[in-house]
Amino acid sequence: MRWTEALIPTLREVSKEAEATSHQLLLKGGFIRKLASGIYSYLPLGFRVLQNICEVIRSEMNQAGALELLLPALHPAELWKQSGRYETLGADKIAFRNRSDQEFVLGPTHEEVITELAAAYLNTYQALPKILYQIQTKFRDEIRPRFGIVRTKEFIMKDAYSFDPDQASLDRSYELMYEAYIKIFKRLGLKVDPVAADPGMMGGSGSHEFMVRSPYGEDRIASCNKCKYIASGDLTGKEGDLCPKCGGKLLFDTAMEVGHVFKLGTRYTEPFKASFRTSDGKERLILMGCYGLGINRILAALVEQHHDDKGMKWPVQAAPYQIQLMAVNHNEKETRDAAEKLYSELTRAGFSVLYDDRSERAGVKFNDADLVGNPIQVIVSSRNLAKDLFELKLRDSGKNLQISCGNVLEKIRSLLSLPEVV
Amino acid sequence: MRWTEALIPTLREVSKEAEATSHQLLLKGGFIRKLASGIYSYLPLGFRVLQNICEVIRSEMNQAGALELLLPALHPAELWKQSGRYETLGADKIAFRNRSDQEFVLGPTHEEVITELAAAYLNTYQALPKILYQIQTKFRDEIRPRFGIVRTKEFIMKDAYSFDPDQASLDRSYELMYEAYIKIFKRLGLKVDPVAADPGMMGGSGSHEFMVRSPYGEDRIASCNKCKYIASGDLTGKEGDLCPKCGGKLLFDTAMEVGHVFKLGTRYTEPFKASFRTSDGKERLILMGCYGLGINRILAALVEQHHDDKGMKWPVQAAPYQIQLMAVNHNEKETRDAAEKLYSELTRAGFSVLYDDRSERAGVKFNDADLVGNPIQVIVSSRNLAKDLFELKLRDSGKNLQISCGNVLEKIRSLLSLPEVV
Repeated sequence: MRWTEALIPTLREVSKEAEATSHQLLLKGGFIRKLASGIYSYLPLGFRVLQNICEVIRSEMNQAGALELLLPALHPAELWKQSGRYETLGADKIAFRNRSDQEFVLGPTHEEVITELAAAYLNTYQALPKILYQIQTKFRDEIRPRFGIVRTKEFIMKDAYSFDPDQASLDRSYELMYEAYIKIFKRLGLKVDPVAADPGMMGGSGSHEFMVRSPYGEDRIASCNKCKYIASGDLTGKEGDLCPKCGGKLLFDTAMEVGHVFKLGTRYTEPFKASFRTSDGKERLILMGCYGLGINRILAALVEQHHDDKGMKWPVQAAPYQIQLMAVNHNEKETRDAAEKLYSELTRAGFSVLYDDRSERAGVKFNDADLVGNPIQVIVSSRNLAKDLFELKLRDSGKNLQISCGNVLEKIRSLLSLPEVV
Repeated sequence: MRWTEALIPTLREVSKEAEATSHQLLLKGGFIRKLASGIYSYLPLGFRVLQNICEVIRSEMNQAGALELLLPALHPAELWKQSGRYETLGADKIAFRNRSDQEFVLGPTHEEVITELAAAYLNTYQALPKILYQIQTKFRDEIRPRFGIVRTKEFIMKDAYSFDPDQASLDRSYELMYEAYIKIFKRLGLKVDPVAADPGMMGGSGSHEFMVRSPYGEDRIASCNKCKYIASGDLTGKEGDLCPKCGGKLLFDTAMEVGHVFKLGTRYTEPFKASFRTSDGKERLILMGCYGLGINRILAALVEQHHDDKGMKWPVQAAPYQIQLMAVNHNEKETRDAAEKLYSELTRAGFSVLYDDRSERAGVKFNDADLVGNPIQVIVSSRNLAKDLFELKLRDSGKNLQISCGNVLEKIRSLLSLPEVV
């Protein structure tokens, strides 16, 4: 992609209301645009990161045997009355009556819809276990939208639901999803703490939250400096309190929950009569689990964990482009020709490349490259060309490499396979 | 994918309210499930087709230089008042007030949101031309949902918007999108008639509709038996009337609009003050075009055009899986082992395979294979194995081929590259 043909409206200044670093940098880098309070558009670079995150999630979910489908956002309100959540969802719920006086809820989560579906299709033991998931936009009347795309009225979730014949099988499904989450975060380069959590309004028993430590987090998290004890939720303690497990000292932190796994048991299958016939002909309720990932939150958390004062430092798997290519002396024909040639070689070789072909000063290009944060910068200059060299800069470490022109593709290929590229 | 691990709830009977063939077959084949009137879930097979259609669209849109982004579904009602469409949209509009008494429209289309964005970013001649697009769920309070996924309250659209400095440039963008649409329909195997159309509520001048002839269409379409004259919309004529162009005879048909391209001019850029600075420093309004594709309608139209009384016949690019593999004598170890081996070979070779590993009678498997309609069926039977053969059946033509076991991968590879596979 050529910068002159792209839509990358980088900004020098952002509004003071952007308090979180991720919010500031995503606005500055031209990744997102605010339409209204808690409602954002994803511009092309932001959209590419969303897509990359979704692809990693899809691949791990499919690997774990989960099946992707797509459920509606418009839910008949009766479904929510049937589960009893029409009331408990409270004021966050977006509900309306249409011209035919039918009431709908705009789905903030899909336990009701998927359980209605499971009740129809998963009614023999042979159909179980099953894990179904979707990646979809959800809605919530967030009264206090905050931190850019972290707390919004409209957000993208991966929500998965497991259906099992018995507790041992539910435990296995839960474990599968837990392990898939660990792999997803690892591939994306996101450090998370899985914390045993309070299931809260989702009902059921047994759950973990996947927490990302951040100064902009709204949850408190306590961890022991000696053992592996970690807890979150309504914590009342203070720094230095004793660990309830080993007597070590507790450290307190804030943390932007990015994922949550729950064992729901029969919380939803009971009201929706989702039962199956066992091998000996008995009727039994299906046991359920649910597994959410906040895609926008993962995006924001990646920025919080990977940035410096110049801008973002995307891990390869999430990066909008693998490579940002630029010519320092763009107005010199020879340098520009070399950059153009390298651009088509890199593209043909299958790399994703953002080529800054603007007639801007080198400083502007360097700044924008650091701001948007693609992991490998390739810099073409007349000075280096004279020595048959290209310059590579690794955005994460800041390391500079001089590579002979003929070896640059091979070098990039090997760099992209290394974890240290970020 | 193994059938026993998939979710493919095929049905023998479907409700009588399913009048359109596509509606009947998609329900029967376990591709969709109705949640409420005009609201459908896409089950795994239906979702895979949606994804395939989206991938073809993405590839052609990107090829044409369009940039993908993602806009919100929640629109502040003020935007719709600014364009004047808050009133003209009428009763189809889904609007509601939230707890803070802010009014929102659930986006049925995105001219307002994208023009607000263009006004912010595309304000110099260097930033133009630009084509932006998204693939997204839209909402409409459809009073009379019909034909399954054809006319629904919630639907998936590809909507693109072009921004140009002058009429000649707009004409080029329009042409680019028109050509991209022709390529998309061709790759998907869908026959469409582009018809010069009345721009209607979208405003502006110059537009084409892409019509699919179908007995379940709600538009009338007239075409000449001699020249290329074709028209749609509020037609008053009858079969045998004379062609206004050449005097030939007119034939009438009904036709399930799947795409629409419009030249909007300054219809939206004027109310949103989306202007740019020309190279000589003048301020001028951007000219706009918009280009929609109904993803669900394309899916339904594909079924209408590709089926027989046994079921669907998916063209390769849209098919849930390229290959459906089954063992006729699944309970014989040798046959089952051969099928299992072939399944892993095909999968390793990169083909997408649905392997019917159920212990069902061959007749059930044959019927389901014809119903779900993957283009190549591979049948493993003890009788053929004894002769070192696999049987291939092409779903579209019904043609049967006996292929020696060692050549089956190569044969399938060459079949998939032929247009006649469908």
